[in-house]
Amino acid sequence: MTTGLPARAALIALDWGTSSLRAYRLDAAGRTLDTRHLPWGIMRLPQPLQDGAATATLSGFELAFEQACGDWLRAEPALPVIACGMVGSAQGWREAAYLDVPLDLARIGTQLTVVERGGATPVHIVPGLIQRQGLPNVMRGEETQVFGVLFEPARAHDNMLIGLPGTHSKWVGAQRGRVTHFHTFMTGEIYAALRGHTILGRTMADSAGADMAAFERGLQVAGSPAGRAGVLSSVFSTRALGLTGQLAPTSQADYLSGLLIGHEVAALAQLLRQQGELPRIVLCGEPALCGRYIQALQHYGLGTPEVAQDATERGLWHLAVSAGLIDSCATAHS
Amino acid sequence: MTTGLPARAALIALDWGTSSLRAYRLDAAGRTLDTRHLPWGIMRLPQPLQDGAATATLSGFELAFEQACGDWLRAEPALPVIACGMVGSAQGWREAAYLDVPLDLARIGTQLTVVERGGATPVHIVPGLIQRQGLPNVMRGEETQVFGVLFEPARAHDNMLIGLPGTHSKWVGAQRGRVTHFHTFMTGEIYAALRGHTILGRTMADSAGADMAAFERGLQVAGSPAGRAGVLSSVFSTRALGLTGQLAPTSQADYLSGLLIGHEVAALAQLLRQQGELPRIVLCGEPALCGRYIQALQHYGLGTPEVAQDATERGLWHLAVSAGLIDSCATAHS
Repeated sequence: MTTGLPARAALIALDWGTSSLRAYRLDAAGRTLDTRHLPWGIMRLPQPLQDGAATATLSGFELAFEQACGDWLRAEPALPVIACGMVGSAQGWREAAYLDVPLDLARIGTQLTVVERGGATPVHIVPGLIQRQGLPNVMRGEETQVFGVLFEPARAHDNMLIGLPGTHSKWVGAQRGRVTHFHTFMTGEIYAALRGHTILGRTMADSAGADMAAFERGLQVAGSPAGRAGVLSSVFSTRALGLTGQLAPTSQADYLSGLLIGHEVAALAQLLRQQGELPRIVLCGEPALCGRYIQALQHYGLGTPEVAQDATERGLWHLAVSAGLIDSCATAHS
Repeated sequence: MTTGLPARAALIALDWGTSSLRAYRLDAAGRTLDTRHLPWGIMRLPQPLQDGAATATLSGFELAFEQACGDWLRAEPALPVIACGMVGSAQGWREAAYLDVPLDLARIGTQLTVVERGGATPVHIVPGLIQRQGLPNVMRGEETQVFGVLFEPARAHDNMLIGLPGTHSKWVGAQRGRVTHFHTFMTGEIYAALRGHTILGRTMADSAGADMAAFERGLQVAGSPAGRAGVLSSVFSTRALGLTGQLAPTSQADYLSGLLIGHEVAALAQLLRQQGELPRIVLCGEPALCGRYIQALQHYGLGTPEVAQDATERGLWHLAVSAGLIDSCATAHS
């Protein structure tokens, strides 16, 4: 937590998802002055007090907002505030639009949804993206990371694929500032559900560290003839290899992780090869998880991707500039 | 529950799985005289009393066994007892062998594991099957259903596939009394985990009855170009179609069911076509679930399967005959 607030800020940026809230205090050059990580995702907001205190009239969103950046705003009341993620969903603070893909990313900053707060600083919420052709597909929050990745001039390229591994992995196709299409894989959430709520978790034991050999074995099985029956079938091998003494309890979680990420990347590789020339791939996400996807991309012949850092805060800052919330002369740093 | 026990029995047969226990009292012609369904699966056995009563010395298995058939055995103490399923697993009453596939089914009856009960009637547990080539695969309980299906003389055929839909679907290849290979798909358990423990369940609402149009739509999507990214990707369409108003909350569970069963049967169809001539397919399982698989098999060009009735009790009875537990002259009925 900050106490002194020595440097002058230009923007408060919030990455507000389902399970947590990250707040950034950024200066006029887009540098991060402070960061806070709070557990107040939109599905587990703080509860308003019932004891007649002043906070009793505040909603859970206002309470979380106050904890995230109330002191920052009292110190510098003129700071603009921008937010991305599930805070803009139907279950969020205010529902923000979905913009249709294909889309020029520059349009996102012109379509912010404003949450007025009765004279207090308003919050500007970033829209999500929707793809309507074929099966519909949506994202909220990842568009900001994509913006942060693509805003780097060195990344201007005609055929890019931005991979955002996580609870729901997104693979976003882009051409020079234009998002052309994207895929969603529920790999992370399905891994957690299989581990926590099926028989596969029962024979697993915690290991001291990641077993990357077991992970690689899972990657290999997903692409083998035995993997052709698909993931609904291959995951059972986690148990059967264990029962036959061929996979230790401490290796089963990483083997399952390799199987699932392997099926995801194998499917992705097939889709990319059908499209022709392979894209330049940039990954963006939690470092250990990106490490697993790098191994999977290499395994399936898609090369070694770049890894982008701090894409969310960069994206929020550039979106605030593009929306006119910050004086554009402050963009010199980019 | 039976009270009078009018007809004379020849066998007590137990189908004892992870979550429930079914007990059958069968006559000398293999006809079912009584059935009981108890919640005492091996993972949730009754607890021994701690109050000093006589039952305090009995294990959970003995307590469940007493409730399932204690009165039947007191009325006819010479009855043999046979059991199949997870009761023979490492977590069961006594671990029974796995027999290697390919296997002549007639061998199963010669390999029962006997649980001695201190002078009381012993329990004969049926072995499971294991396939070691490629990825290992195992079954416990389904081998008895396969035995029940294949024992029907009308089903002697050179190229059969027996489908056993359930928590874990098994597809068992057989040639005239010989099991050649099998596949496992965790479709039922993954459906329950996705519905109960991922974001997909959050937008679902209960419907008054099954929405078979939504189920058919899921089958179709699994086999469409959009389904080629695989099940980790396609399941997200349950949510995205809902968010875009194209799939009602009351239709989402059946759509997801169609997607998962569609991916399973699409993969199966591809495996079968690689093997050459399509097999004669027999399904065996809970009627409503078999109905879904019939629709899926038809959708993927695999024809209309037969449906076998009462395969578990038939299988247990024929296994008991084959093991010499029942006088073989009683087999006239088959």
